[in-house]
Amino acid sequence: MTQPGHLYGIGVGPGDPELMTLKAVRLLDRVAVVAYLGPEGGDSSARAIAAEFIPAGRTEIAIAMPMRPGREPVEIYDKAAGEIAAHLEDGRDVAVLCEGDPFFYGSFMYLHDRLGGRFPCTIVPGIASITACAAAAAVPLVRRDATLTVLPATLDDPSLEARLANADAAAIMKVGRHLARIRALLERLGRIEGAFYVERATRPDQRVRPLAQLAAPDAPYFSMILLPERSKS
Amino acid sequence: MTQPGHLYGIGVGPGDPELMTLKAVRLLDRVAVVAYLGPEGGDSSARAIAAEFIPAGRTEIAIAMPMRPGREPVEIYDKAAGEIAAHLEDGRDVAVLCEGDPFFYGSFMYLHDRLGGRFPCTIVPGIASITACAAAAAVPLVRRDATLTVLPATLDDPSLEARLANADAAAIMKVGRHLARIRALLERLGRIEGAFYVERATRPDQRVRPLAQLAAPDAPYFSMILLPERSKS
Repeated sequence: MTQPGHLYGIGVGPGDPELMTLKAVRLLDRVAVVAYLGPEGGDSSARAIAAEFIPAGRTEIAIAMPMRPGREPVEIYDKAAGEIAAHLEDGRDVAVLCEGDPFFYGSFMYLHDRLGGRFPCTIVPGIASITACAAAAAVPLVRRDATLTVLPATLDDPSLEARLANADAAAIMKVGRHLARIRALLERLGRIEGAFYVERATRPDQRVRPLAQLAAPDAPYFSMILLPERSKS
Repeated sequence: MTQPGHLYGIGVGPGDPELMTLKAVRLLDRVAVVAYLGPEGGDSSARAIAAEFIPAGRTEIAIAMPMRPGREPVEIYDKAAGEIAAHLEDGRDVAVLCEGDPFFYGSFMYLHDRLGGRFPCTIVPGIASITACAAAAAVPLVRRDATLTVLPATLDDPSLEARLANADAAAIMKVGRHLARIRALLERLGRIEGAFYVERATRPDQRVRPLAQLAAPDAPYFSMILLPERSKS
């Protein structure tokens, strides 16, 4: 019987290829198959980050995701998991590239649900967007006994307000089309001073602004609002 | 006039040197001065992680921290900042090594407070302990519209309970001597099932256990409890 291949969930970080880890680069040089998600009809961001470290001639599995909102497209993950499983069963190692970190709001989790128990699997953590955004804004995020609350911008105002009430520092992820609403909410809660807006952290087109000074009414999906820890006097 | 040197706050990740970023390694090869914190009379963990990437003959600044609890030792940070500033004023670049990420519960923030506004400064994010622990435990941390709350174990029970009440996923940091109390609290709150205890993630002596099965009553400072997202049915 063939020894099964090893599944790697590899975090490639927020965008700058230099923020990949040595381990991610070493493994990409070694695996037979590289898989990644990307928008239907578009380029995979995760593959673009790792591109220079993928040797020519590797088998690649591009998993095309429809860009409509709503439930996770179960059939697409099922099909991709089947394709990856076939390689693993034949003894080939497979690396799945993940923007940021594989277990921090990453789509890899849906493949891990399907494959993690069936095959030997290693997760290689990556630089997560929250720390990349704090670094880009040059804003210390959280220290000592303070708490940090990470909130998806998709939550409604009452949910956000309840969680911000006892948050010292907070990061609001995936701001995108929710920017105007969230900005208004933070203004009402008196939390707009000191808040930063960060877009495409560590990429060449990175943009960092104090939220109060932000003119544009919309934001790309990969944008974040940081509320650094309130100073205790 | 001499062009001032550049200050780098460099995250070296959770312990495995291979989880350093390419950028951290490149900069360590280039800077004239390397600084790091460590316990008084002991070795610096941050330096140990980066050791193989620090070229021989570099000027090194070891900042010795007393191991007593309480307020940050202001005088020690003041003195270290003065020493680093002298190098920067003479035009030498200085890298400060930080376990994990510089802006995520890192001591570098106290040096950044003192130097960040005076000298050109770049933060190089590192793999943070939360994502390293989730990877070690093979437990997806947080997905889709779920929230993640990061809590220092030093908070008292009522503070922890209030924040856990509306947390989907949670990470309790720096568990150390608080392990028994926190375990009892999570038992009382019905949150012990599915919780993981992770100690020294990514190091050779890493230990991962379901919290409910943990026998030992104490834990090292660098230990964490992960409460993965509660499944929504």
